[in-house]
Amino acid sequence: MANYQPVRGTQDYLPREARLREYVKQSILESYSEFGFLQINTPMLENIELLSGGDSGDNQKLMFKILKRGEKLELDNINTENDLVDMALRYDLTVPLARFYANNSEKLPNPFKAIQIAEVFRAERPQKGRLRQFVQCDIDVLGDSSNNAEIECLMVSANALIKLGFTQFEYRISDRRILNSLIAQNGYAEHEIASVCISLDKLDKVGIEGVKNELLEKNLSGNAITLLSAIQQVQEQGIDALSDLQVNPDAIANVKQIIESVNTLAKNKPFQAVFDISIIRGQGYYTSSVFEVYANGFAGACGGGGRYDTMIEKICGKPSPAIGFSLGFERLCIILNDNNFVPPQKEMLALVYNKEDNFVKVYEHAQTLSKNYVASAVPKAKNLSNQLLKLKDAGFAKWQLFGDIEIKEIK
Amino acid sequence: MANYQPVRGTQDYLPREARLREYVKQSILESYSEFGFLQINTPMLENIELLSGGDSGDNQKLMFKILKRGEKLELDNINTENDLVDMALRYDLTVPLARFYANNSEKLPNPFKAIQIAEVFRAERPQKGRLRQFVQCDIDVLGDSSNNAEIECLMVSANALIKLGFTQFEYRISDRRILNSLIAQNGYAEHEIASVCISLDKLDKVGIEGVKNELLEKNLSGNAITLLSAIQQVQEQGIDALSDLQVNPDAIANVKQIIESVNTLAKNKPFQAVFDISIIRGQGYYTSSVFEVYANGFAGACGGGGRYDTMIEKICGKPSPAIGFSLGFERLCIILNDNNFVPPQKEMLALVYNKEDNFVKVYEHAQTLSKNYVASAVPKAKNLSNQLLKLKDAGFAKWQLFGDIEIKEIK
Repeated sequence: MANYQPVRGTQDYLPREARLREYVKQSILESYSEFGFLQINTPMLENIELLSGGDSGDNQKLMFKILKRGEKLELDNINTENDLVDMALRYDLTVPLARFYANNSEKLPNPFKAIQIAEVFRAERPQKGRLRQFVQCDIDVLGDSSNNAEIECLMVSANALIKLGFTQFEYRISDRRILNSLIAQNGYAEHEIASVCISLDKLDKVGIEGVKNELLEKNLSGNAITLLSAIQQVQEQGIDALSDLQVNPDAIANVKQIIESVNTLAKNKPFQAVFDISIIRGQGYYTSSVFEVYANGFAGACGGGGRYDTMIEKICGKPSPAIGFSLGFERLCIILNDNNFVPPQKEMLALVYNKEDNFVKVYEHAQTLSKNYVASAVPKAKNLSNQLLKLKDAGFAKWQLFGDIEIKEIK
Repeated sequence: MANYQPVRGTQDYLPREARLREYVKQSILESYSEFGFLQINTPMLENIELLSGGDSGDNQKLMFKILKRGEKLELDNINTENDLVDMALRYDLTVPLARFYANNSEKLPNPFKAIQIAEVFRAERPQKGRLRQFVQCDIDVLGDSSNNAEIECLMVSANALIKLGFTQFEYRISDRRILNSLIAQNGYAEHEIASVCISLDKLDKVGIEGVKNELLEKNLSGNAITLLSAIQQVQEQGIDALSDLQVNPDAIANVKQIIESVNTLAKNKPFQAVFDISIIRGQGYYTSSVFEVYANGFAGACGGGGRYDTMIEKICGKPSPAIGFSLGFERLCIILNDNNFVPPQKEMLALVYNKEDNFVKVYEHAQTLSKNYVASAVPKAKNLSNQLLKLKDAGFAKWQLFGDIEIKEIK
């Protein structure tokens, strides 16, 4: 039998799923738009040179590359993969944003507050259960070096989560420079910091002992034991422990100001901001503030982001301070779906008619019904009860037989 | 200087353009959803075998193909392009729909009324001014062989156009079988019909004489002169001339019924349906009804479609009657943009603050303003008048200096 499954690692979305996804997209887009964030669109395809630049090392390995076409493709003369390809599918929305900004910044307000909600592609091994096409949902503020941008991104993202019905959540916030100075103070060299961070990022999974062992095995120049005990001290005593540890005071002031401002603005709202030194974020490109958002009752972050003040320049030569926040679109959809969330909309009604009925009359009746319902005229199938079952699966709650007055529940 | 343009043949969409596109998408989606059409999503990527099957000959030549990855890519052992690739970007939404239907039909209502609004990709020569990534906007009814499906598709698409503000438009409708029988009656062989149709499709561009010359040059077995005079007769006298010409009576009855039903339902609405024998539609896969929609004052169709009762089976082995209608999304956006259409939304206001201002207070004021405006807090730039100009370009109509009471127009 032929294979009609979607490409491995991708998904078909049935009507109910598609409706939820569309609702989540629109709801987030509206939330961000309310505060003047501006949606932009860039193509799914980018030149391969662009996508191979920058700081996104791991993602670059996961590019879907596009074969050259026509006479540009010389099959007789291939040395490396790169002779074969000229473009690739984007693996994130940040590299395209940097290109967009370089291409269009003269036409854009400064600072520029961007919304992007769109598909990205990564050739992950499908067996890891990761999607190879998924929707990212990013806001970015380009051109504002003050932490007002952080505060705003956190507040508007909280609005988006509240609008989606999230009733308890927490921002966990740090500043990369804090951990970096702790690491350096404990004897690690500048070039070892990234590697130490990778190990520290596993704190919540493998615990202090696990991280200690991993760091010791890495055989780096610093002292894993004193580093971890300093981190533990901060975790227990909170941000004020940092002043004793002689950490970068700008970084401490930055985090404190963000947390205090967000908590002031969050009064009477169902979220708060806390300091969490263990927030690291995967990508190498964050330069100071980093944050994640956790919803009560759900393991793992629902979104995160941070400040990346050097990346735009690396990609497009134009220096610009930048900060981004990304809501985990796919994760939010899974949580909402698991909680049987149904997007608010008119009730769906199937107007079932017989093939002999005059379709003009049927459609006129459907038009009348459409004032109160999503009304779909459907010809009666041989097996009506099975037909109603499928309609129910697709979201229809009621049905009416054309000619009857009664509107019935689909059971 | 490096190249920060989007990939050739694709576009970046600035905030105003993106907002219009999003509005058009949402408006169309809502119109179709009101009558129970159900949105689905399929991946941008499909297996290359699937995309290479079916009837979409020309589009297949325009595929963006995806290079194999990892050990599947054997650079030492390449004979043809196909050794290098395993997937491609979809070139339309109909082939993916057929695969989706084969994969999921047991979970779907029958008939299944689908909405797809999504990107497709074609490696057109960029110099032709065609987009290589563009949005298609399709509805399809699978599983209904009666022309109720045609009538419904035309009515709901009219609703979508009306909602977008189109005030005068016309459906031009024919049935492929009519032209096919005229062509056959004038001596052309079965296998020549497609070629004759390609020439006839140029009637509006090159006129009767131009088509006649082209047909004569093609040196086919039929009589171009009698064929064209028959077509002219139908164009002058209307659909009733067909009965004299002994054309397939089912086809005539089908077209008449669709036109009469649509015109009955269109009473008091700003559109009508007419018979037009010259409606051919490019693709080879239409089997009977074909239609296009023309907006008053705009050359070229704004959408079209038809019945394709054999294609689903060819692609996925599962026989199913099918009919589709596609609104020309990109064309509609251009028309609306050229007419300075602005999507209805709250007025946009920039709340300009000084760097010394307390951002918590600024954000609180923006929250208050957001009851009546899209309110964006922006730090004051050195060159305020230039800043306001850019904000205006992005859609902002008003501004307020934080601390001032007055709200001013941006001039």
